[in-house]
Amino acid sequence: MDKDLKKYYSLLKEHKLLGGTISLLQWDQETKMPHKGTENRSDQLALMSKILHEKSTNKEYVKAVNTLFDKQEDLDPIDRRSVEVSKRELDRSIKLPAEFVEEYSKIRSLAHKAWVTAKKENDFSIFKPSLSKIIGLTKQYADYIDAGTETYDVLLDDYEEGMKSEDVTEIFSKLKIDLKELIEEVSNQEEKDANAFGSIEYDDDNVERVVIKMLETIGFDFDKGTIGRVHHPFETTLAAIDDVRVNMSYYHKDFASTVTGAIHELGHGLYEQNIDEKYKHTSFSHGVSLGVHESQSRLLENMIGRSRAFWEYFVPVIEEYFSDRVNTSISLDIDKIMNQINYVSPSFIRIEADEVTYNMHIIIRYEVELEMLKPGFNIDELPELWNSKYKELLGIEPNSLSAGVLQDVHWSMGSIGYFPTYSLGNILAGQLWEKFTSDHKDYDSKIRSGDFSQYFEWFKTNVWAHGGFYKPKDLVKNILGTDMNSESLLNYLKKKYI
Amino acid sequence: MDKDLKKYYSLLKEHKLLGGTISLLQWDQETKMPHKGTENRSDQLALMSKILHEKSTNKEYVKAVNTLFDKQEDLDPIDRRSVEVSKRELDRSIKLPAEFVEEYSKIRSLAHKAWVTAKKENDFSIFKPSLSKIIGLTKQYADYIDAGTETYDVLLDDYEEGMKSEDVTEIFSKLKIDLKELIEEVSNQEEKDANAFGSIEYDDDNVERVVIKMLETIGFDFDKGTIGRVHHPFETTLAAIDDVRVNMSYYHKDFASTVTGAIHELGHGLYEQNIDEKYKHTSFSHGVSLGVHESQSRLLENMIGRSRAFWEYFVPVIEEYFSDRVNTSISLDIDKIMNQINYVSPSFIRIEADEVTYNMHIIIRYEVELEMLKPGFNIDELPELWNSKYKELLGIEPNSLSAGVLQDVHWSMGSIGYFPTYSLGNILAGQLWEKFTSDHKDYDSKIRSGDFSQYFEWFKTNVWAHGGFYKPKDLVKNILGTDMNSESLLNYLKKKYI
Repeated sequence: MDKDLKKYYSLLKEHKLLGGTISLLQWDQETKMPHKGTENRSDQLALMSKILHEKSTNKEYVKAVNTLFDKQEDLDPIDRRSVEVSKRELDRSIKLPAEFVEEYSKIRSLAHKAWVTAKKENDFSIFKPSLSKIIGLTKQYADYIDAGTETYDVLLDDYEEGMKSEDVTEIFSKLKIDLKELIEEVSNQEEKDANAFGSIEYDDDNVERVVIKMLETIGFDFDKGTIGRVHHPFETTLAAIDDVRVNMSYYHKDFASTVTGAIHELGHGLYEQNIDEKYKHTSFSHGVSLGVHESQSRLLENMIGRSRAFWEYFVPVIEEYFSDRVNTSISLDIDKIMNQINYVSPSFIRIEADEVTYNMHIIIRYEVELEMLKPGFNIDELPELWNSKYKELLGIEPNSLSAGVLQDVHWSMGSIGYFPTYSLGNILAGQLWEKFTSDHKDYDSKIRSGDFSQYFEWFKTNVWAHGGFYKPKDLVKNILGTDMNSESLLNYLKKKYI
Repeated sequence: MDKDLKKYYSLLKEHKLLGGTISLLQWDQETKMPHKGTENRSDQLALMSKILHEKSTNKEYVKAVNTLFDKQEDLDPIDRRSVEVSKRELDRSIKLPAEFVEEYSKIRSLAHKAWVTAKKENDFSIFKPSLSKIIGLTKQYADYIDAGTETYDVLLDDYEEGMKSEDVTEIFSKLKIDLKELIEEVSNQEEKDANAFGSIEYDDDNVERVVIKMLETIGFDFDKGTIGRVHHPFETTLAAIDDVRVNMSYYHKDFASTVTGAIHELGHGLYEQNIDEKYKHTSFSHGVSLGVHESQSRLLENMIGRSRAFWEYFVPVIEEYFSDRVNTSISLDIDKIMNQINYVSPSFIRIEADEVTYNMHIIIRYEVELEMLKPGFNIDELPELWNSKYKELLGIEPNSLSAGVLQDVHWSMGSIGYFPTYSLGNILAGQLWEKFTSDHKDYDSKIRSGDFSQYFEWFKTNVWAHGGFYKPKDLVKNILGTDMNSESLLNYLKKKYI
């Protein structure tokens, strides 16, 4: 290999090793770390972030990237793309002073702790000082990156390359109107019967075993991944392709939500586990953007995981497992399950929302975030702003802060500007699902028989294997021959619910 | 605070944060990491060790420590001891080149993987090349530290300050004779009935819950610690006092061994959790030596955990838990339990050995290690050497390599010279037990009623709280007014078994 490339990849490898270590520190904090370890962990994360920042912005690395970037025409396509992505990341991070990175990391870690307590105690004042600091540091962050651009656009671009808040506002404005109409038409009037799984004895250990069976059936490779129990479900990759962790929440004792949450994270995990091995050493050995990532999790969660075929296959598996545990025959009613998991109605909690109202939760957060970043925003008004948006767009007002403004982990982690990618993912999921089901007209009977290979192969070939090799826009165009638009998603929802 | 002290403690804190991160990488490798993450983890550990080595041997830190060391007379006792311990560690580590540290760490990580496979497949040849490298690197290590001293003495001194192989050989030579006699006298002749817990349905999740109850009753603080499931039990501290992890093996499906193993690690954990908060920032915020540490784990495992009073309290707890699980009344026979856990007989597996024969396993390993480090030692002869020692000292010959030379994790981690500290710990446990029970003559009835406060307070006050403030020898002298000797242990064993 070319000497410059060799140097670049050896430095990049160090950054990836340190990045993976930081992810482990975070993952452990969520899954196993005892309560009193928080302060130490927060110091650890700050120090490791500082070390990584120093290494990934030092002269040696800057020189390695710039040298290759200047001769990118001579590089083969894989090396060229790797250098391009590195250059983009580098240009962002050399703008951040090391002290800022350390401070930001430390505040986020403490904010996360405050958020957990605040949510538990339904008390915004516990989280308020941390959130206030997070907002301030976020603006400072955006200013460091590009003081001439709107804060929100800088943040968005981190998650979804090239996306502008202007575009998002346009897409969401149309979606808001379409959804309002659809929600009014298809909302359930009778009260939700959430008892479809009432006959099984809910127990974290047993539910975990069933969920593991489901993950294996769909295609998760436990040689390259594991699971974790967390407060709020998420997927994290500790080593590209080889160490992918799907984390689930069993705490709300609701079997259906546990499963749909797990299947959602599985969608992320399958993407990360199935990137082509030839990209492992590169800077793009992961899903290409949050939106595309979310399209994979939402498609698996909704289009597949909430379909009748899916449950027709898994219900007997679940029945058998739980019957064995209690030595009594347990029988589940598939109609009740379908009613429960596809029950449409405005509600407070985003992650428990049905797939019709879900995007309204995102639009609310997007609009709240735009306000939050405005100069002179009074943070004391945040809970009221949140509630008024729910009133306006979903016609309901949260009955507690924990079920309102305190429900999501994102802001405590500094992830402002992240929410819109959820809806962008839903929109893309609609388009990919349309294409997949037109390529495989017998998809439904395959799933009904527990055969997920068609799904697995199609998405592996078209999406997962590419990692970040193509830019998001190009990846979409390659597969669909068109840009992103919300038509397919609306058609899918109308077909299913009207 | 004095400027030099402030500098020293701020650098020391970084080292401790990085050390804790390395411990987490290792802990995760043992508990949760998927199989294919091994190579990446090995690279991560190597890189992190290199970073820590660089930081803990750079000019800034060397200057900080030496400046304070030179004016140690002016320091208060806590700062003075912290500087003394740091100086000792520093003198050792500046002798190791960074490349050696990285290589050594990498080899150990790969060796560990090879050992797991070798043990599983009962095939020494899988582990042999790694072990050979470990032996070579160990000798190299000792040469870097002090080329003029016997390799084994350099290694021993790492674990037990000031201890010489000459002393160990002397102690072990006497112990070997005493034990041979005692084993012949008290060995059970009838076959072991290992079925005392046969009526409970062994299930990892359920056993774990019972063990957690036991740990809580004895005094483990889950706000400052957690548990993990591992192949080979161990305790690890990720953050002094505040994040202590007791790891247990449930794999052999043997309830009695699961519990005694857990209680053993709990002994280590209680020591680490109960060090005085005022020492948290120092270089000695941990147990003072491996021998003293082991005295705490062995005392809790054997003197308490294998006593009738202990089981008289816990048997009803266990019965109730498992009866509830299966809706049938389960009844355990305490005589059968006592016979099972105190069954004395020469056997192959050290960690399952009874407390009488246990030290013979250590003496064997000590003698094997002395051979292993001799120039010209032929590693192909290691399994045969191992077996012949078992024949000579315990009168039995291992029936497989997994139950023989491949049984322990230690060598795969580079820990040669570590084994003797187990027996030094047993000897000290005998002395501390004699003192504790003469201070509290009603100890037996307290334990029988599930009240561990006497035990907890005595050991917290006399041993745990001090961390590494006193040198091992001084700590022992402070408590006992005498040096270490094996009389108390032999008296305890004779009283219990003859």
